[in-house]
Amino acid sequence: MIKAGIVGGTGYTGVELLRLLAMHPQVDVQVVTSRAEKGLRVDAVYPNLRGFNDLCFVAPVVENLTACDVVFFATPNATAMTMAKELLAADVKLIDLSADFRLKDVAVWEKWYGAKHACPKLLEQAVYGLPETNRELIKRADLVANPGCYPTATQLGFLPLLKANVIESSMLIADAKSGVSGAGRSASVVGLMSESGESFKAYGVPGHRHLPEISQELSHLSASPVSLTFTPHLVPMIRGIHATLYAPLKETGINLQDLFETFYADEPFVDVLPSGAHPDTGDVRGTNRCQIAVHQPQGGQVVTVLSVIDNLVKGASGQAVHNMNIMFGLDEKTGLDQVGLYP
Amino acid sequence: MIKAGIVGGTGYTGVELLRLLAMHPQVDVQVVTSRAEKGLRVDAVYPNLRGFNDLCFVAPVVENLTACDVVFFATPNATAMTMAKELLAADVKLIDLSADFRLKDVAVWEKWYGAKHACPKLLEQAVYGLPETNRELIKRADLVANPGCYPTATQLGFLPLLKANVIESSMLIADAKSGVSGAGRSASVVGLMSESGESFKAYGVPGHRHLPEISQELSHLSASPVSLTFTPHLVPMIRGIHATLYAPLKETGINLQDLFETFYADEPFVDVLPSGAHPDTGDVRGTNRCQIAVHQPQGGQVVTVLSVIDNLVKGASGQAVHNMNIMFGLDEKTGLDQVGLYP
Amino acid sequence: MIKAGIVGGTGYTGVELLRLLAMHPQVDVQVVTSRAEKGLRVDAVYPNLRGFNDLCFVAPVVENLTACDVVFFATPNATAMTMAKELLAADVKLIDLSADFRLKDVAVWEKWYGAKHACPKLLEQAVYGLPETNRELIKRADLVANPGCYPTATQLGFLPLLKANVIESSMLIADAKSGVSGAGRSASVVGLMSESGESFKAYGVPGHRHLPEISQELSHLSASPVSLTFTPHLVPMIRGIHATLYAPLKETGINLQDLFETFYADEPFVDVLPSGAHPDTGDVRGTNRCQIAVHQPQGGQVVTVLSVIDNLVKGASGQAVHNMNIMFGLDEKTGLDQVGLYP
Amino acid sequence: MIKAGIVGGTGYTGVELLRLLAMHPQVDVQVVTSRAEKGLRVDAVYPNLRGFNDLCFVAPVVENLTACDVVFFATPNATAMTMAKELLAADVKLIDLSADFRLKDVAVWEKWYGAKHACPKLLEQAVYGLPETNRELIKRADLVANPGCYPTATQLGFLPLLKANVIESSMLIADAKSGVSGAGRSASVVGLMSESGESFKAYGVPGHRHLPEISQELSHLSASPVSLTFTPHLVPMIRGIHATLYAPLKETGINLQDLFETFYADEPFVDVLPSGAHPDTGDVRGTNRCQIAVHQPQGGQVVTVLSVIDNLVKGASGQAVHNMNIMFGLDEKTGLDQVGLYP
Repeated sequence: MIKAGIVGGTGYTGVELLRLLAMHPQVDVQVVTSRAEKGLRVDAVYPNLRGFNDLCFVAPVVENLTACDVVFFATPNATAMTMAKELLAADVKLIDLSADFRLKDVAVWEKWYGAKHACPKLLEQAVYGLPETNRELIKRADLVANPGCYPTATQLGFLPLLKANVIESSMLIADAKSGVSGAGRSASVVGLMSESGESFKAYGVPGHRHLPEISQELSHLSASPVSLTFTPHLVPMIRGIHATLYAPLKETGINLQDLFETFYADEPFVDVLPSGAHPDTGDVRGTNRCQIAVHQPQGGQVVTVLSVIDNLVKGASGQAVHNMNIMFGLDEKTGLDQVGLYP
Repeated sequence: MIKAGIVGGTGYTGVELLRLLAMHPQVDVQVVTSRAEKGLRVDAVYPNLRGFNDLCFVAPVVENLTACDVVFFATPNATAMTMAKELLAADVKLIDLSADFRLKDVAVWEKWYGAKHACPKLLEQAVYGLPETNRELIKRADLVANPGCYPTATQLGFLPLLKANVIESSMLIADAKSGVSGAGRSASVVGLMSESGESFKAYGVPGHRHLPEISQELSHLSASPVSLTFTPHLVPMIRGIHATLYAPLKETGINLQDLFETFYADEPFVDVLPSGAHPDTGDVRGTNRCQIAVHQPQGGQVVTVLSVIDNLVKGASGQAVHNMNIMFGLDEKTGLDQVGLYP
Repeated sequence: MIKAGIVGGTGYTGVELLRLLAMHPQVDVQVVTSRAEKGLRVDAVYPNLRGFNDLCFVAPVVENLTACDVVFFATPNATAMTMAKELLAADVKLIDLSADFRLKDVAVWEKWYGAKHACPKLLEQAVYGLPETNRELIKRADLVANPGCYPTATQLGFLPLLKANVIESSMLIADAKSGVSGAGRSASVVGLMSESGESFKAYGVPGHRHLPEISQELSHLSASPVSLTFTPHLVPMIRGIHATLYAPLKETGINLQDLFETFYADEPFVDVLPSGAHPDTGDVRGTNRCQIAVHQPQGGQVVTVLSVIDNLVKGASGQAVHNMNIMFGLDEKTGLDQVGLYP
Repeated sequence: MIKAGIVGGTGYTGVELLRLLAMHPQVDVQVVTSRAEKGLRVDAVYPNLRGFNDLCFVAPVVENLTACDVVFFATPNATAMTMAKELLAADVKLIDLSADFRLKDVAVWEKWYGAKHACPKLLEQAVYGLPETNRELIKRADLVANPGCYPTATQLGFLPLLKANVIESSMLIADAKSGVSGAGRSASVVGLMSESGESFKAYGVPGHRHLPEISQELSHLSASPVSLTFTPHLVPMIRGIHATLYAPLKETGINLQDLFETFYADEPFVDVLPSGAHPDTGDVRGTNRCQIAVHQPQGGQVVTVLSVIDNLVKGASGQAVHNMNIMFGLDEKTGLDQVGLYP
């Protein structure tokens, strides 16, 4: 059994890790930390876990975690970077669900996250944990930077097109929509149901932190420079991301459906829907699956890709478990083979 | 492997059976019927099942089902009763999620369901499938009448009090609230999100079909005659039932918390919350669990019980699988041991 | 024109007052206070008010308010009581939407609100502002305690029955459900859409602050002592309260429909629905109207009353404007005669 | 008083017309038709109208409508075109909220609407009722084709840019999101809250009927040919449309904020928000207002416009009343000057 620890067990990605790992046959969660809830039983805070978890929250300090084989950081940004070095030194594998190790350029990181990075040397060592592009690196990684939710949905949609070099990478548009759980479990006015229910709005149009992450990764995959316009929106629902992606096609006559199906034929968690389909976030609820459809409306110059995930699973905790499975040589689907909760 | 068939695979209880049975290690679903979708692949209608189910819908006729060990009826009322006799004769065990076999008195059934019952003789043979009260009968049953959603939440809340004979059974009140999936997957105006979203209302106050079912079953358990006022309400959410139950206490000084905890100590799917708790439908989403709390506000004469379930699982398909596990001698939790999807 | 001031203009009852008063032909809002947003334009915080309100928030101090004819307190509890005396001395009429002046017994107030009352002498002077019971007193009042949202819906439902002395007042049950805006516009975890969306739960079952308020007022109206069990619930919607009320009838054969219609025949904001109806919070959205239906299920011993309001209008700001209309001798419907926003 | 009739009074645009006209000081609604509800009181079907409307539904036949000064068609497509000629002959002004008269080219209409047009000669006579572009024509019109909801939000966003000729009209993208009331009040499975709640999906990506309407109108305004990619999505909320619009800028250094503010300076129902703003559908709920913001993310080559309306008001019935006000020489804001219902 893999001994796992979770730092930051009271946020939504933390409790989702607890849910997924409770059903994972090869993992034993031994430590869950929380500064605020230290000493409380985990299932007193999260009644959905009653009967599945007997732990109490402990303080988020390194010595509580060194006996683990793997530690997940489900923390706010700028926390993992303060503990990573010591834990790596203790031979603990790390999977960081925050943004601390996603960007390779420390200057870019510090600009977008407004803080000094505590261990810039680890940025190169960290592997960006999108299995569909980095599987081999993840197998050998000690430190995985788990991708953001928007970046996951967006990259999986653009990836086959960029790799095949069939779109103008200088005019990419990602119009993305997220359920409210993406904002986390911190007290806020903007997250109140009275504010975010029955309403729809964009946010971060001048610049969102996931923009440099997506741009960095798409640039790796693209033959030509990438320029992306990224617009996140808030949807009055709890879980789910829908990315609607647009790009000008370099040529017509490409069989886009075939391109996507071939590209993802062996991927366990990317499901290319039949031609003409419209994926629904409601069909991937609770699962680690990305469902994708590709369209060329009226046979015109613009390709439209529709990509949906559950932001807390494929967009966070499920992808983290997927990365762990790869890092520990398990079957990739272990513990993640669930049917979406519909309706 | 148990060979299972599902009649009426396109409604919500049908697709929920498909979800649960896809993850059940001892069951192989071999037949799914649908009059309307006959010939279509199941996962073309329900994309959440892609990769889990390769079947096509077939016609709902007896000969398609006789090779099954067990058949679930996830049909509208008045369908199962037309096929039950022949299937039982073919040695198929039946679990009916509709109301056809729930009432013992054919006259009462015909009054509330407005139809002539097609096989009244089976009403006595049918076992009412609430495991917490009828486990021994279910073990030996060939025909199980799976309880309604409201009746499940309501009975589990009143049960310890009636068995202990500590409440006035002549003045029971069940104020029950259901998510909209309880109304099923039929085209309707009242079920439109524009109608049922952002609104709350009671319905069926003069008389709802679950009233005679609850009354019949509570009367079995009660030492004195039962009189129940039952008010169902529609909640603008998809899954979940919350029953708020009231009864006058015959005496004060009873340790109600202890009464409930003792009563349900060995039940795998009833979870009595700590004293003072308020169960949340969101904590049992997707699970077969009933979470219950008991209160005696201001130490007064009225006991208040709060009982929550997922109407599609413990209130329908999960309870049906539980009944199947009992009927076939499996561990009762097989395939049903999932963590609630929170948030 | 009546010169009006609003203390606490950034909460939901404050912004709802601004909405209603912007459309009131006889009122000019001249002062809006906010400690937190002082100096900001009101319509920069609330874009729905763009074009209707040119004011900036000012500090909540007495000298900013003494030129007003009427001041509304849309503040948290324990604020109005610190400013009321001085404002009354300056001949300003006060309408307090908080709970500071609702209870007559200072000991009860201090027990439930956990604070020392700053001006207990005003408790007697204050008039409880439910127009349907206190219209004549309101006409002459300088200080009106605007009722709570649950108390409004509950009292209007029990009122005709208690006045007619046809129910056992010792066994009243109010099962009440509120949209989330009732919790106000303060940052919180429990109010997040991720927490309160797609879920239903009770809260405050051991005791909610509206219980003593309802009990006090119902006791005034009742010939015999009142004992009430009150259970509030949180509904995943923004606006609306639905109170489902139960009481044992003292006798059968009463024409309850006629009783209600007669009782409310002249009330401009109470609408008794036809026999058999189920009022829907969605039909009173945005309006000052209470819609009520009365049922006697199966002709039995229990009367069931269904009462719906918009918690922010008839349950707060609309009722405050109604009280103002009465205090200033205006037609009671002035500025309040709007059609509910359906769907 | 203007005598008004409404054909198709039971859909959402019909009942919204009834709401708006009930508060319009110059209009008397004298006829409301409904094939299905003929003979029933209007307020028996719509309890929100109790006290505001004493009419009964009558049959939708010409002779019931000829005494009206204006008739609104709030009907499904292909109904207005069968009655328009006779009503115009009777000197009744017509405002059609359906799509029957929106397209100028009968072949295009018949292709997208899949029917033979009943009176193609009226297509030229009909005036497309977007006041911001066609005010002068509307003043003299007898037959106004009220724009679709998506087309309204989309055109208002692109209009200043196309008129100023600062964008490449050959690469327009409209990523549009609508609340579920846009699908109308017909029984359907896809519109059930269980299906459309807690989920987000695109639809009609290969081609939606509003595409030719938008293309036709934008082409009128543009100096160069227009090519538009239009993606509608369904949002789990009742009211509201959010259009996120993208276009490549022909040049940099344009003051886009100033361009928009100047363009809409005199428009009563278009509100350009301050620089950097993100309009929220929740701020225009229940109003005839379009709120718009314009962004140039990272000062790049792509302009992003955010445009929100209430689909039932500015996207349908409110715009129809606005058109009526213009046709009858009233102040344009008459009956439409309401504050948005927030929260």
